[in-house]
Amino acid sequence: MINETYKNMLSNKNIIRVLSEYATARKAEIGEENVFDFTLGNPSVPCAPSFTEGVIDMYNNLEPVSLHGYSPSLGIESVRETLANALKKRFGVSYEAKHIFMTSGAAGAIAHAVRAVTKPGDKVITFAPYFPEYIPYVNTTGAELVVIPADTEAFQINLKAFEEMLDDKVNAVLINSPNNPSGAVYSAETLKALSDMMRDAEKKYGHEIFLISDEPYREIVFDGGEVPYPADFYDNSVSCYSFSKSLSLPGERIGYVAINPKAKDADIFSAMCGQISRGIGHNCPASTAQLGIERVLKDEWETSDLSIYERNMNILYDALTDMGFSIVRPGGTFYMFPKALISDANEFCTRAKDFDLILVPSDNFGVDGYFRIAYCTDTEKVERSLDAFGKLAAVYKA
Amino acid sequence: MINETYKNMLSNKNIIRVLSEYATARKAEIGEENVFDFTLGNPSVPCAPSFTEGVIDMYNNLEPVSLHGYSPSLGIESVRETLANALKKRFGVSYEAKHIFMTSGAAGAIAHAVRAVTKPGDKVITFAPYFPEYIPYVNTTGAELVVIPADTEAFQINLKAFEEMLDDKVNAVLINSPNNPSGAVYSAETLKALSDMMRDAEKKYGHEIFLISDEPYREIVFDGGEVPYPADFYDNSVSCYSFSKSLSLPGERIGYVAINPKAKDADIFSAMCGQISRGIGHNCPASTAQLGIERVLKDEWETSDLSIYERNMNILYDALTDMGFSIVRPGGTFYMFPKALISDANEFCTRAKDFDLILVPSDNFGVDGYFRIAYCTDTEKVERSLDAFGKLAAVYKA
Repeated sequence: MINETYKNMLSNKNIIRVLSEYATARKAEIGEENVFDFTLGNPSVPCAPSFTEGVIDMYNNLEPVSLHGYSPSLGIESVRETLANALKKRFGVSYEAKHIFMTSGAAGAIAHAVRAVTKPGDKVITFAPYFPEYIPYVNTTGAELVVIPADTEAFQINLKAFEEMLDDKVNAVLINSPNNPSGAVYSAETLKALSDMMRDAEKKYGHEIFLISDEPYREIVFDGGEVPYPADFYDNSVSCYSFSKSLSLPGERIGYVAINPKAKDADIFSAMCGQISRGIGHNCPASTAQLGIERVLKDEWETSDLSIYERNMNILYDALTDMGFSIVRPGGTFYMFPKALISDANEFCTRAKDFDLILVPSDNFGVDGYFRIAYCTDTEKVERSLDAFGKLAAVYKA
Repeated sequence: MINETYKNMLSNKNIIRVLSEYATARKAEIGEENVFDFTLGNPSVPCAPSFTEGVIDMYNNLEPVSLHGYSPSLGIESVRETLANALKKRFGVSYEAKHIFMTSGAAGAIAHAVRAVTKPGDKVITFAPYFPEYIPYVNTTGAELVVIPADTEAFQINLKAFEEMLDDKVNAVLINSPNNPSGAVYSAETLKALSDMMRDAEKKYGHEIFLISDEPYREIVFDGGEVPYPADFYDNSVSCYSFSKSLSLPGERIGYVAINPKAKDADIFSAMCGQISRGIGHNCPASTAQLGIERVLKDEWETSDLSIYERNMNILYDALTDMGFSIVRPGGTFYMFPKALISDANEFCTRAKDFDLILVPSDNFGVDGYFRIAYCTDTEKVERSLDAFGKLAAVYKA
């Protein structure tokens, strides 16, 4: 019999997708160049050439039976080893292959991590603004996503509200830095304070509370800044990573979960993820993608040329603040989260459509009165959009 | 806090993997050529050249940003259309793109199909002998896998036992033909009788009972035979397919679910799978794999050269029956399921190791007293194994 829960989810439209579909339809109508589509977080730069070259080389020179053979359910051993070494070199954390589990992107990573460290009925805390897909990622496991209201001053963490929401049912905390949608990078101070509170709560309630860190934007960081690494602050931590943004490979569905070697049960965590995989349709990424990544990471943690995102950010940030928008300057990602010029962000974004500016209202991210700009697009397009932003701002100055 | 359920699953070793690891260790000891490793169902022939050529061409000539861009969560539209047309041509069923959902292999397909047509607490029936991973596929959804004892005469379906087990809680029936491990192909008579009983039960209990058909071995069929298509017999049916075996691409994790257009809610089934995906880490296969498959299927349903499996089957079947083994002659797959020469199949398979014959005892597949031979290996190896089988048989003749 058809499952009513999933059937009912169909009426719950994803607003980002709806707006993106509107933008696509509008482009067909008036020409692609005339629509300023800032809806989707799809990378706009090509993947690193070493990935393309590596895959072509494998297809030309490896035996197909071994190239396309089954990957072990935890990932191809040499790939996990390469990753462990690369992470060790980069972060000084003593990862070994056994701490790495290969996933189909960050989505697969979070799906495994949440299942590994919670059980149905538990609470998982996250912080607004947050990526809206966290709701199905967490709630379909039987755990419950609890959202802490935003710190709208700096889009760091509202620690006071966090402390008030902590109780015995909280078994995991899910963070995302650099943050989608705000672009904020959680500072060392933020992570330190968060970790202290979590350690206190672990003691108080007598069980581990895992810190799950979703970090696909780790390499897209501005102003020469650094993104503090959660494992440096907290032992029971798990990093969920995707190569979708750093290597512009979102369609290849490749990422990993890395458990902090100091975490409780760190040595069996990946094997547990393998067991979880058996029930959710085996998220093991394609062998070609795994082996392609191995080649890219062999010498250093290579990325695509990501400089365009900072260039776009600077253009938009300077122009929009000049126009009177209030914006927390992004430390990374390819998103920006300005305050709308009226309190109703939905009305504001609807009005923006008059100027063919397609923006995503903030209530989807757990905050009212803001909007998200995904500026992973050509710089020329960003520059041309400023006129439209100016016209939109003028509406509310009148 | 670490999830105890998944932690406890770690002690539950997969016997096929354990035996395969034993075989690998033994090969290191005495030389690969001296171990007759019949444990794993890993295809032994290369993928179709058109896949390799298609992927190399795409990597050389497509824009990386579009080649590696996000696939829509239901799969790339043109790929779904190509598949719908290919299936329509092949089976005469009026599929459209909306009936196809792209998955990471048959595992992903079954994970989605079970979630779409059952809810926690429901029963899903399958028939021994059966693929042991059905247990986690089904039970981790909250439904319960119920196994009908084997029809050991022909490894068709024990219809009498099935009828007795049908009750109001049964919401799905999961079949696998050509069958792993028996190699049996369910006949048209079997599917007709099964469908009739299921339709009666639907009427009696007042709800749909879905037929989920797991068919990765559909193209590996012997003696010029045909594999009857479940959608021809039963409206509320779903086909779960993988290109792992037909194209020798197990590591690429590519397959699909196709809902019978005549099934209840057929037009929303794929969209429901998209919702299910959001919770289980998005099983969407890699875009390269999807587009590679599209090229392979453009003109006809191409496969690798699969003839070796029938050759191997004939050699083994003839020789083993001559030695006194009782075997239901496989109609397809690359498996064979002979009766052990003593009632304890585990003891029999342990004894086989003395001759470096690595066989899988049948209790893992829900039947006692048999063993599985996975003959997806070189024909030369199969021929050389006959001496070892002869020695093993001789032990029990003495």
